[in-house]
Amino acid sequence: MVETKSTAGLRGIIAGSTAICVVGAGGDNLRYRGYDVEDLAEHAIFEEVAHLLLYGHLPTRTELDAYQKRLRSMRGLPQSLKDVLERIPADTHPMDVLRTGVSMLGTLEPEQDRSHQDETADRVLAAMPSILGYWYRFTKSGERVDTATPDKTIAGQVLRLLTGREPSDERRRFLEASLIVYAEHEFNASTFTARVIAGTLSDLHSCITGAIGALRGPLHGGANEAAMELIEKFHSPEQAVAGVKQMLAHKEKVMGFGHAVYKRRDPRNAILKRWSEKLSKGAADAHLFPVSEAIETFMWEEKKLFPNADFYCASAYHFAGIETPMFTPLFACARASGWCSHVKEQRADNKLIRPGAEYVGPEPRPFVTIENR
Amino acid sequence: MVETKSTAGLRGIIAGSTAICVVGAGGDNLRYRGYDVEDLAEHAIFEEVAHLLLYGHLPTRTELDAYQKRLRSMRGLPQSLKDVLERIPADTHPMDVLRTGVSMLGTLEPEQDRSHQDETADRVLAAMPSILGYWYRFTKSGERVDTATPDKTIAGQVLRLLTGREPSDERRRFLEASLIVYAEHEFNASTFTARVIAGTLSDLHSCITGAIGALRGPLHGGANEAAMELIEKFHSPEQAVAGVKQMLAHKEKVMGFGHAVYKRRDPRNAILKRWSEKLSKGAADAHLFPVSEAIETFMWEEKKLFPNADFYCASAYHFAGIETPMFTPLFACARASGWCSHVKEQRADNKLIRPGAEYVGPEPRPFVTIENR
Repeated sequence: MVETKSTAGLRGIIAGSTAICVVGAGGDNLRYRGYDVEDLAEHAIFEEVAHLLLYGHLPTRTELDAYQKRLRSMRGLPQSLKDVLERIPADTHPMDVLRTGVSMLGTLEPEQDRSHQDETADRVLAAMPSILGYWYRFTKSGERVDTATPDKTIAGQVLRLLTGREPSDERRRFLEASLIVYAEHEFNASTFTARVIAGTLSDLHSCITGAIGALRGPLHGGANEAAMELIEKFHSPEQAVAGVKQMLAHKEKVMGFGHAVYKRRDPRNAILKRWSEKLSKGAADAHLFPVSEAIETFMWEEKKLFPNADFYCASAYHFAGIETPMFTPLFACARASGWCSHVKEQRADNKLIRPGAEYVGPEPRPFVTIENR
Repeated sequence: MVETKSTAGLRGIIAGSTAICVVGAGGDNLRYRGYDVEDLAEHAIFEEVAHLLLYGHLPTRTELDAYQKRLRSMRGLPQSLKDVLERIPADTHPMDVLRTGVSMLGTLEPEQDRSHQDETADRVLAAMPSILGYWYRFTKSGERVDTATPDKTIAGQVLRLLTGREPSDERRRFLEASLIVYAEHEFNASTFTARVIAGTLSDLHSCITGAIGALRGPLHGGANEAAMELIEKFHSPEQAVAGVKQMLAHKEKVMGFGHAVYKRRDPRNAILKRWSEKLSKGAADAHLFPVSEAIETFMWEEKKLFPNADFYCASAYHFAGIETPMFTPLFACARASGWCSHVKEQRADNKLIRPGAEYVGPEPRPFVTIENR
């Protein structure tokens, strides 16, 4: 007998099964196909993890070389897509740029049928940083940048496109780690969106377009940008503690703390905190790291809340020279690997996702013609 | 205690409450805010029904006049959006055109905040037929059509754009009925997609873009096109019966029959069947109506399956001069009224929609460096 009482937000409802990822086992774990995310972020590059998610195993050296080569060959954008990007205003939310760019790509290079899904997924993965970077540089400086950069990895390419500079090894290595921790997170709202769309047997571009739209929301992907806006307000740890104290007194939400699934700590946070500290050395606004630490300590003492992945990722991206509005789009470029993996999994054993609703509206009533209203 | 066993497709799970629509009460009813869809399709115009769905009540004459005037004033498209549409290839799935067009509109005219949601919804409703019609006419004949047609209603406008002719009263009246029966259907996959995206507090354009992508799938909106492809194969009722008999023998799915929710009949079907019969009179391929009837009779005798809304809508659209690839996009233009209503409802009492998953993947395993794989 199936439970039919209303379950707002589907919290605690199992909507399907997955072999891709397990979140929060033991209160503080995140594993991609059995591998701990902390090991992956320490030792792997993003393409290795994308390969693991999409194809089920960590690639051998030969497989990884071939995969990177294939992805690199897919970095260019068709002229019609560039024409579209050039027409998107400079003050547009960059997630809307990604959403429109991927949707347009789907009209120019449609997924022919499911036998092409791997190729389509790789192309989407390779094109998203290019879409973002092309629009960013064009609207910022009128430059029509060549998105097929010489960088070996997506991390290197996207850093070059978003900073306009040769990426340092340290920054590139941090980007790998950030893309890896953001790559996958089970049935979160954007991934679930992709699976609901996939359930109608729609094309991959529709699934990814929908997922980008879901990740855009402030209750989902927007948290890292909100965390940045918070810490940027303070010039010293003392000021930060006083400021956050006041926020709590006014019952304001402090962004970047606590998590719906993790109960003891967010396993992604330790990785990103180390990177934030490392990248802060010598930075013009290095004080943002001790500011962040002071907020962390205070939030734990006052509310027993721990920082989630978004909190230290914010300052780390900032120290790496990335502008705040690009934080969520970078999250999207990473999560695209998880989204595509879930679409493949949904399709492999598909059932249309169609829940029911509790009706709370008016009783049946007779139609009244417009003259008699 | 919440049920946690896996429920593929969320069938039977109540994902939330709604006051907009009740489907299948008593096995064969569809009511929009308490009003029977058969009455609405008989007596109302689409704008009256959109007003009912979006604003909760049937408009008075004054309200309807103002609403139609507002929607008419929103039919034009910005030049940048036209530039985008002109770059979408002629052989593109028209649902991809709508998806890209609405996403682009969101970059040019973003929803500022929730206080503007009614204005944004009205604009999306008014722009979708224009997006479809502009692209269709441009790619078909190179014409840069003025989408701000003189027609009083959306039904008239879209008929004119898609046929290139002054719409007859009969065809226009049928279009109203078809848009009304397609306007809303509770937590179907595309509407549920819109609600999942709305749950992250994302913008309306993201919700509608995702919903279009879900409706595109052959298990959802694509059924009316598949029904058309079926009936077009036959030149007589006898041939149709023989052909469908053979399909059943080969265990092929006959599109347009049966329904997941309705058990006795699809209440939308009677309306659309009457229109199909009426419009077939004098049509060059009038035989498609008796062909459809023969299939209906045979499917009931053999399988006890009744036709759903998509079955007779297909031939009726065809008799009205609309090309088959435009059937699902017309469904989308209608359902946009339901989607926007559900986004408003979700936002009014929001909770992030985030179900769980049953993990069926590999056990925890140690990371292996690439040299040792």
